[in-house]
Amino acid sequence: MPQDPKTQPRYTGIATFMRTPYSPTLAEVDIALVGIPFDGGVTNRPGARHGPREVRNQSSLMRIINQATGVAPFELCRVADVGDATPESPFELTAAHSAIQAFYEPLCAAGIVPLSVGGDHSVTLPVLRALAKDGPVALVHFDAHCDTGDFYLGSRFHHGSPFKVAAEEGLIDPLKTIQIGIRGGVTDRDIWKFSYDSGMRVISIEEFYQLGLSAVIEEIHRVVGDAPVYVTFDVDGLDPAYAPGTGTPEIGGFTPFEAQQMIRALGDLDIIGADVVEVSPPFDPSGNTALVGATLLFELLCVSALAWQRRQTSREA
Amino acid sequence: MPQDPKTQPRYTGIATFMRTPYSPTLAEVDIALVGIPFDGGVTNRPGARHGPREVRNQSSLMRIINQATGVAPFELCRVADVGDATPESPFELTAAHSAIQAFYEPLCAAGIVPLSVGGDHSVTLPVLRALAKDGPVALVHFDAHCDTGDFYLGSRFHHGSPFKVAAEEGLIDPLKTIQIGIRGGVTDRDIWKFSYDSGMRVISIEEFYQLGLSAVIEEIHRVVGDAPVYVTFDVDGLDPAYAPGTGTPEIGGFTPFEAQQMIRALGDLDIIGADVVEVSPPFDPSGNTALVGATLLFELLCVSALAWQRRQTSREA
Amino acid sequence: MPQDPKTQPRYTGIATFMRTPYSPTLAEVDIALVGIPFDGGVTNRPGARHGPREVRNQSSLMRIINQATGVAPFELCRVADVGDATPESPFELTAAHSAIQAFYEPLCAAGIVPLSVGGDHSVTLPVLRALAKDGPVALVHFDAHCDTGDFYLGSRFHHGSPFKVAAEEGLIDPLKTIQIGIRGGVTDRDIWKFSYDSGMRVISIEEFYQLGLSAVIEEIHRVVGDAPVYVTFDVDGLDPAYAPGTGTPEIGGFTPFEAQQMIRALGDLDIIGADVVEVSPPFDPSGNTALVGATLLFELLCVSALAWQRRQTSREA
Amino acid sequence: MPQDPKTQPRYTGIATFMRTPYSPTLAEVDIALVGIPFDGGVTNRPGARHGPREVRNQSSLMRIINQATGVAPFELCRVADVGDATPESPFELTAAHSAIQAFYEPLCAAGIVPLSVGGDHSVTLPVLRALAKDGPVALVHFDAHCDTGDFYLGSRFHHGSPFKVAAEEGLIDPLKTIQIGIRGGVTDRDIWKFSYDSGMRVISIEEFYQLGLSAVIEEIHRVVGDAPVYVTFDVDGLDPAYAPGTGTPEIGGFTPFEAQQMIRALGDLDIIGADVVEVSPPFDPSGNTALVGATLLFELLCVSALAWQRRQTSREA
Amino acid sequence: MPQDPKTQPRYTGIATFMRTPYSPTLAEVDIALVGIPFDGGVTNRPGARHGPREVRNQSSLMRIINQATGVAPFELCRVADVGDATPESPFELTAAHSAIQAFYEPLCAAGIVPLSVGGDHSVTLPVLRALAKDGPVALVHFDAHCDTGDFYLGSRFHHGSPFKVAAEEGLIDPLKTIQIGIRGGVTDRDIWKFSYDSGMRVISIEEFYQLGLSAVIEEIHRVVGDAPVYVTFDVDGLDPAYAPGTGTPEIGGFTPFEAQQMIRALGDLDIIGADVVEVSPPFDPSGNTALVGATLLFELLCVSALAWQRRQTSREA
Amino acid sequence: MPQDPKTQPRYTGIATFMRTPYSPTLAEVDIALVGIPFDGGVTNRPGARHGPREVRNQSSLMRIINQATGVAPFELCRVADVGDATPESPFELTAAHSAIQAFYEPLCAAGIVPLSVGGDHSVTLPVLRALAKDGPVALVHFDAHCDTGDFYLGSRFHHGSPFKVAAEEGLIDPLKTIQIGIRGGVTDRDIWKFSYDSGMRVISIEEFYQLGLSAVIEEIHRVVGDAPVYVTFDVDGLDPAYAPGTGTPEIGGFTPFEAQQMIRALGDLDIIGADVVEVSPPFDPSGNTALVGATLLFELLCVSALAWQRRQTSREA
Repeated sequence: MPQDPKTQPRYTGIATFMRTPYSPTLAEVDIALVGIPFDGGVTNRPGARHGPREVRNQSSLMRIINQATGVAPFELCRVADVGDATPESPFELTAAHSAIQAFYEPLCAAGIVPLSVGGDHSVTLPVLRALAKDGPVALVHFDAHCDTGDFYLGSRFHHGSPFKVAAEEGLIDPLKTIQIGIRGGVTDRDIWKFSYDSGMRVISIEEFYQLGLSAVIEEIHRVVGDAPVYVTFDVDGLDPAYAPGTGTPEIGGFTPFEAQQMIRALGDLDIIGADVVEVSPPFDPSGNTALVGATLLFELLCVSALAWQRRQTSREA
Repeated sequence: MPQDPKTQPRYTGIATFMRTPYSPTLAEVDIALVGIPFDGGVTNRPGARHGPREVRNQSSLMRIINQATGVAPFELCRVADVGDATPESPFELTAAHSAIQAFYEPLCAAGIVPLSVGGDHSVTLPVLRALAKDGPVALVHFDAHCDTGDFYLGSRFHHGSPFKVAAEEGLIDPLKTIQIGIRGGVTDRDIWKFSYDSGMRVISIEEFYQLGLSAVIEEIHRVVGDAPVYVTFDVDGLDPAYAPGTGTPEIGGFTPFEAQQMIRALGDLDIIGADVVEVSPPFDPSGNTALVGATLLFELLCVSALAWQRRQTSREA
Repeated sequence: MPQDPKTQPRYTGIATFMRTPYSPTLAEVDIALVGIPFDGGVTNRPGARHGPREVRNQSSLMRIINQATGVAPFELCRVADVGDATPESPFELTAAHSAIQAFYEPLCAAGIVPLSVGGDHSVTLPVLRALAKDGPVALVHFDAHCDTGDFYLGSRFHHGSPFKVAAEEGLIDPLKTIQIGIRGGVTDRDIWKFSYDSGMRVISIEEFYQLGLSAVIEEIHRVVGDAPVYVTFDVDGLDPAYAPGTGTPEIGGFTPFEAQQMIRALGDLDIIGADVVEVSPPFDPSGNTALVGATLLFELLCVSALAWQRRQTSREA
Repeated sequence: MPQDPKTQPRYTGIATFMRTPYSPTLAEVDIALVGIPFDGGVTNRPGARHGPREVRNQSSLMRIINQATGVAPFELCRVADVGDATPESPFELTAAHSAIQAFYEPLCAAGIVPLSVGGDHSVTLPVLRALAKDGPVALVHFDAHCDTGDFYLGSRFHHGSPFKVAAEEGLIDPLKTIQIGIRGGVTDRDIWKFSYDSGMRVISIEEFYQLGLSAVIEEIHRVVGDAPVYVTFDVDGLDPAYAPGTGTPEIGGFTPFEAQQMIRALGDLDIIGADVVEVSPPFDPSGNTALVGATLLFELLCVSALAWQRRQTSREA
Repeated sequence: MPQDPKTQPRYTGIATFMRTPYSPTLAEVDIALVGIPFDGGVTNRPGARHGPREVRNQSSLMRIINQATGVAPFELCRVADVGDATPESPFELTAAHSAIQAFYEPLCAAGIVPLSVGGDHSVTLPVLRALAKDGPVALVHFDAHCDTGDFYLGSRFHHGSPFKVAAEEGLIDPLKTIQIGIRGGVTDRDIWKFSYDSGMRVISIEEFYQLGLSAVIEEIHRVVGDAPVYVTFDVDGLDPAYAPGTGTPEIGGFTPFEAQQMIRALGDLDIIGADVVEVSPPFDPSGNTALVGATLLFELLCVSALAWQRRQTSREA
Repeated sequence: MPQDPKTQPRYTGIATFMRTPYSPTLAEVDIALVGIPFDGGVTNRPGARHGPREVRNQSSLMRIINQATGVAPFELCRVADVGDATPESPFELTAAHSAIQAFYEPLCAAGIVPLSVGGDHSVTLPVLRALAKDGPVALVHFDAHCDTGDFYLGSRFHHGSPFKVAAEEGLIDPLKTIQIGIRGGVTDRDIWKFSYDSGMRVISIEEFYQLGLSAVIEEIHRVVGDAPVYVTFDVDGLDPAYAPGTGTPEIGGFTPFEAQQMIRALGDLDIIGADVVEVSPPFDPSGNTALVGATLLFELLCVSALAWQRRQTSREA
């Protein structure tokens, strides 16, 4: 359980995610909160390497029960901050990715559900490499960009391409992938061609507002079905008024309220992992981006805990 | 009347609320604008003690006529900045509250309508103690939190509990109390139990968007009726993108436009006082929180002036 | 064409608007991107003189194709950054306006379409003086204020009056003028009397949300018809959560998403020029106001390029 | 006397300079604290129009006795905040200067000593026009720039020229003028030619550190002698690490400690007026520039009060 | 030992002081790094409650060996972050002080040397109450204020009085107390009378620069001698250009370089505890105040480790 | 020549270094101002990739003549902004370095003197590789760190090692290398062993203040002699109060005034190139770091122009 705010004010103590115990040994952990302080894959503004620490800081404002849904994740399973997946060779993108993957291998092997905080979006790739050992998983992807791009500035791997690589490596199933909030200018008409060609469901921000929240939520369920699913939330999916501290902001995004409604609606999906990425504190003078990131992490924790409990129940049955 | 912006640019002169005359003697005042620079009741981020001064600063941008409603408050009654209700013993919560109450006693006894700027939300309690001498009043309460909590960190009084204490002291009528915008995680399933048990009408942000603005406005009228009513606006009811400078921000709130519509709809209620609280300038790098606070104070002034005029008219009749 | 982001990361190189070539000679330019670094007309917070430079900086994040509409402006016509319309006598409002006009005279005479970045809103007046040589043009005006005010602080010319002067000088046709997003307090009931008396169509923010986006877009088309039209976008039309860096912020505005939808809908109008004004970087700690300004400039470029192409086609036919 | 901080915390109450009473009628005032919210003369970054208000805000941190010198200015004479010298026509430099002068005329005629807070440095000119009615005064001038420049951008009057104009108009005596802290690049070898040709004593920052504080202080006394003297302090004389919020920062300046030592050493001069100028809050994220400005204003008040008292004593004798 | 920066970049991992292990049980600790997140004693700007967390964050930049002195504290003794001395009743000053004292009692009883990070300066009092059980200790006190004031705003205890109370309670020996950097205005000529009357050695900033660093250092040694000594460093002793994020800034202070020289010179004193206080992150936009605080904490650790080792050696001998 | 500030205010126009003409073709250039927007070598806080653009922005405040020395660089030689040395493969450190070197090869081959703005300090290495074709050059190195470290986090190349590599590659002569301002903690007693073993002259900040400016300047001349010399200025050599926007700040550095004196004293050295590195705008809320960087670049330009002229004269003789 997190530290008790009734005896310790929230701004006190070591800053772990949501004031959970710090458990670097992974002992007695069902859902692990992990930081991935790496931004070597950004194509524009850096700083997401400082994201985990600031999200930890702001996550002190989180509490233990979701007032809207009644979910109390810390009652459902054991949650701990297990520290950071540290890129030991931050100067090399692929070596860094390998180090991140190496951190997740034992964690995933132990059946622990990873909830991560980036870091730039490229870090989702090594997480999926560790997690999707039994075949491709479904993907719910909130973002302004499809991140299924190709070679860019001399590299196949960067924060604009992880899901193309993930699909090609068989880590995600494009037909069970849905990408929500897509917008912004493009440098090439075919930039997200891979998404469309591979059968991913792409919901632009314009379609998002035409469909409305309920229909989008239905569409998520239709695409994902009962497959094991990973949820990845790039804060640039939000309008930058809510999340200015990010590497590639695009105006005209959805709101945190809308994000909360969508995540809460995932409570019946078989979530096996999730992340919040692209929080860049140096571009976040008010700290609101990290606060939004921390709160969405809590929302993801709630639905992940429900899924974890269901799997436990069915396993025990 | 406020200083004339046609001869004096708005950024000039001593910063009083809305450039109104400074009248610490309370002479010739119908509606008093008061600062309450106290934040000794905050449970997290401090700084609201600096709120009145910065709201005064930003309120220079206010003008004299409400373009949307046509109300010209300064033509309806005499409005002045009467200075601050100063907590002479800021190191002690209850002594500070007593000092604040002592400031309001003569003001309320003189029939002056107080419009206050906090300070943390605990300051509404001493205002109500001075104001509700003739029995409990109705309450329209905009906030992310019900603020009807209990003992916390060793104190019954803090910025999360004023309305429980106010109800227990007979200052507000729970059955004529409506709380709008409630959301965020909770540390205890029963944290707002007092609101529900005492019959307050709690509209969560989720219900707010399900009902829609018109229905919420109707609900306010249904609950309050024609009772004398106090309106309290905690800026954390707004989404923190609009009001990051506050002590306990919660993502997913309503917008200033929605707040303006709701306040304007109170023009037919018998408002006897109002406040805007929890503006914390040190966490407000762009100054927008103080600007929002100043503008909502102007909206509250407009509807308070209407109520004042109606009471005058009926008294004279 | 802008610099290629596939070989040069967006944050590199000299900061021109959207990374277009710098062409101060106006040679081989169909649409000119121009800065107007002048804020001598502001009545409150200054700083818009620094707007062009910071919009140039943030505009590096722009790309070459509009994902929502498919428009690729740089394929349709030749676009360049032609530098700044410099006020050589910045200490005198009318002399500064003359210098700005002098910059635009040859540009407009050459048939080049000007897309400008202010600067305070007074700068639209000298642009129109250079542009509307053949009689009054229609005007689509996004703003919190009608800017049809009168003498103020001793001057007929300031950032609250350009469109009264423009109408009086026969530069715009009031009957083909539409003003969208109007709100905020007023110092005089008749402050925008000129708009109403002259027949301009004024859509307050309240009417904006009552009508809905589609109806507003229809209304724009009804008012403008097929007349040559100038589009002027004051960023204070947006809610200040999105655009805090501006001289006269008013809470309760529309969103960048709504702005984008409205601008995109102008693609069938005969746009002959446009501007984005009132970006004031010193009040913009996160840089988001400049990013919004840069993105709306890109949206305006897309629809201006369509109009340019249509005129070329019809001329060639 | 200022408000008592023992009963009212410093952050409370209306923000007047140093918490002194607000006395717009000039009654019972020996030394007047005046704001001059005008920045129409700046040649680069604006914002000093907001200087008086923010210096008032930060000046709450001032106290009543100078610990280093023992001077208690409020015991020596009556000090009040008399409000702002408002430029009624801020869009015209010369008209604005006239309005400022008009504010000072009766004040100076009444024998009140003016201590002003700018505004850009051009505002010292109209103050001197009101003050130096009986012939040229001596001048102690702290600054990075001599401000004796010529026509610039079409105007003879701007914040880089007041002291050339003042000398030409016989308001200051160049032979009794000393300028301290001069540095920075120049656009013309002869830019400060007027200072040298007219016999002003110019101490560059390099000479300042070669001479040392004591010798500089001696030099001030040698130049000024027992003439009535005006002291003008441009905060850009300080290194911008201490005063980043200013219009024309130049690195390599002196420190606030050195400034304090120099001002305190003026206690035996016949000071008849003083100002602190060029505080530009929009460029001052930490507020330190305004704090420095407020503290130097207090230091100037202390030495001005000593001079006032000496004149009283000699008059009475 | 701190985490190895050669395998883990400094910005990664849970933020403990200087990346030391987190040891809330106090096991295997010789020198304890403690946070005291309490600012209920401030008389002006709050926010120091957030100081420990931000100093922890910035302290990641610390390394393990003092390049200037060669001291390697982590080789000399076992250093750990033991968490925060949490005020469980933050709304009551004396109760909060009791809770802080209670945290230190077992720590001091175990012979662990406490190095603390405030919090406002009032927190040094409860630390001394736990530490000085065997009679008064000497005190080296860096500050702009003597902090030996009296009743203020209704309270004997606040951040301007701890050393008067400490002397009166026999926790410090005034004759072995030295206060360095004193300056700023005063509200009362006798405000620091207690310091002078009780025989404390007060070095104003003016005397500091007259004496020079070497003489000041000699004076410290003369006053303290070989008594056990506590070192307390209020960051407002520094000029606010270096430490703007503090509650009561005073311009004209010493530099971090000078502070470093003074602390390093304490290496032969019998230091039994130390603290760095008054870091207030909400007023520290660049983070430099916290960085300075973290670095001075490292300097204090180095000299404290030397003293610890000497005591060990003499004990073993 | 730079744009004329007498007709164009400094804040106007495209932001090139010091408002010089933009000459990407290298035609008619004697001294080239180059940006190197790369920060892939930082070991801590990123953001220096945005340094060139912000230094360009702030460099508008530069003027054309050095008031202290009388040097007018633009009269001595042709100076232009030639754009950025763009790392085409920013995700790979060595590939990025190669791309940077490739930009400099033709520039150096043409005998153009490069003055560069980083970027992190690793970028000096590829510049030296292009520049030092005729054997090792002397080096004057201002910095808090020797930057002669070894393998770190898996890489031999990073911003802490360029001068070890440069010496090993024969690009610089260690015996003619002087490093000034060294300080801060170290992770290893031997971290700068290479500097000492190879015979570089290391002046710590403590020695710097013991020697005094004159002696340091003499020491620079003694070490460098009449060898061709490269000057590299890492802004973290300055105290972070002056330059907070940098990747690895260390408190206790020298001042900009001292830096200016040292650079000006290099006017008789045979400077063949220079750079200013490690300006990181995201950590620079006031912009002062970029202003300092721009001003030191101007100082370096002045002394480089003198050297260039001497070489021309001697070549012609």
